[in-house]
Amino acid sequence: MFELQNIKYIAFDADDTLWHNETLFTLTQNKFKQLLLKYHTEEWIDKKLYETEMKNLQHFGYGVKGFTLSMIETAVELSEGRIGGDEIGQIIGYSKEMLASPVELLEGVEEIISTLSQTYKLLVITKGDLFDQEGKIARSGIGEYFTHVEVVPRKTTDIYEKILSKQRIPIENFMMVGNSLKSDVFPVAQIGATGVHIPYQTTWAHEDAEADEIEKHNFIQLENIRKLPDLLG
Amino acid sequence: MFELQNIKYIAFDADDTLWHNETLFTLTQNKFKQLLLKYHTEEWIDKKLYETEMKNLQHFGYGVKGFTLSMIETAVELSEGRIGGDEIGQIIGYSKEMLASPVELLEGVEEIISTLSQTYKLLVITKGDLFDQEGKIARSGIGEYFTHVEVVPRKTTDIYEKILSKQRIPIENFMMVGNSLKSDVFPVAQIGATGVHIPYQTTWAHEDAEADEIEKHNFIQLENIRKLPDLLG
Repeated sequence: MFELQNIKYIAFDADDTLWHNETLFTLTQNKFKQLLLKYHTEEWIDKKLYETEMKNLQHFGYGVKGFTLSMIETAVELSEGRIGGDEIGQIIGYSKEMLASPVELLEGVEEIISTLSQTYKLLVITKGDLFDQEGKIARSGIGEYFTHVEVVPRKTTDIYEKILSKQRIPIENFMMVGNSLKSDVFPVAQIGATGVHIPYQTTWAHEDAEADEIEKHNFIQLENIRKLPDLLG
Repeated sequence: MFELQNIKYIAFDADDTLWHNETLFTLTQNKFKQLLLKYHTEEWIDKKLYETEMKNLQHFGYGVKGFTLSMIETAVELSEGRIGGDEIGQIIGYSKEMLASPVELLEGVEEIISTLSQTYKLLVITKGDLFDQEGKIARSGIGEYFTHVEVVPRKTTDIYEKILSKQRIPIENFMMVGNSLKSDVFPVAQIGATGVHIPYQTTWAHEDAEADEIEKHNFIQLENIRKLPDLLG
């Protein structure tokens, strides 16, 4: 099933696959909860923020700016309009800190990406805000190893097929590596390419896959990126 | 200088070239000013919002979400923190209206794009938020005429050269059409391709070009998109 000797192109997800991202959101969400603690409990704030984020995905998509607008909207709702301008200002401040924060590579990434780039064509395929992702790739220090970077609004079978066709990559030559089963692995497996799952320490609730969904797909799971050269042999 | 018989690829800017965009921002900015009128004059609000937008471009880039965060930040500053949660909620509401609003094509666009697509390969090259722009292209009804859509974080000579090289488009075969001298025309002229300027009824202050800058470049100016087939002969 997995004809790994055919692989010539390896695409990587970016956030939480190449560098830490979710931790930054978690840290910010913790600050946000401290700010609203006088109105509600942490659990309630988490629940309401997640609901607002889900409702707003159709408007704002993924990324720091949409997350920030959802935090502000949640703050207004949970405080029943009593939230102060200064607190709103603080939330906007969080977003600028997030966008300017250094890109912290995951353990082993620099070495493995550099090694693999000698044998394979490497790509980045990432969701999120274009401006934000371009900035992170530039600050990551590993941008030069990738021959192509694609920032996409969502990761569906259609989108993967479009990228492969545009880049003239035969399906059997393509492997996608990422921390999200839903976005990086299942749709890739569905079009007949190889999906490799490398879980991150925490996963955003929205990206969690159901157990019965997992059973329907063939994919490879690795503990961390250091296992990738061994897999490829 | 302009060897128009060589043109095979025509790229179009999107906002205010194919469809109305700035009017939507202007309408929203008017609502925003009404909301803050109890704190300051319209002129002062315009000035402060523009300053905040410019300061925030490095963090947020272009697009509705960044504009909204800048409106909220300006509201907090101008009200010295007295702005109410309900008013902040209204500003977030504006952004959702903007993102969901129908795409209104400029006069002649549908007909001319359809005609040109029979002879030329058509592209869209646009700045802004990826999620936002993909949505607009999908809703525009003319997406099918374009063989390639590129959403870029900024429009510099480097970026244009990268697109041409990736798409294997020789410089002499390339024409870019847009309403911004700074973004659509000057950098294209600088790399030796043909830039065509079609002014929009209003131009965002940030995109205004200085007169002495204009004198340094060779480009074509047209009154509206209907003149394009005549120009190409």
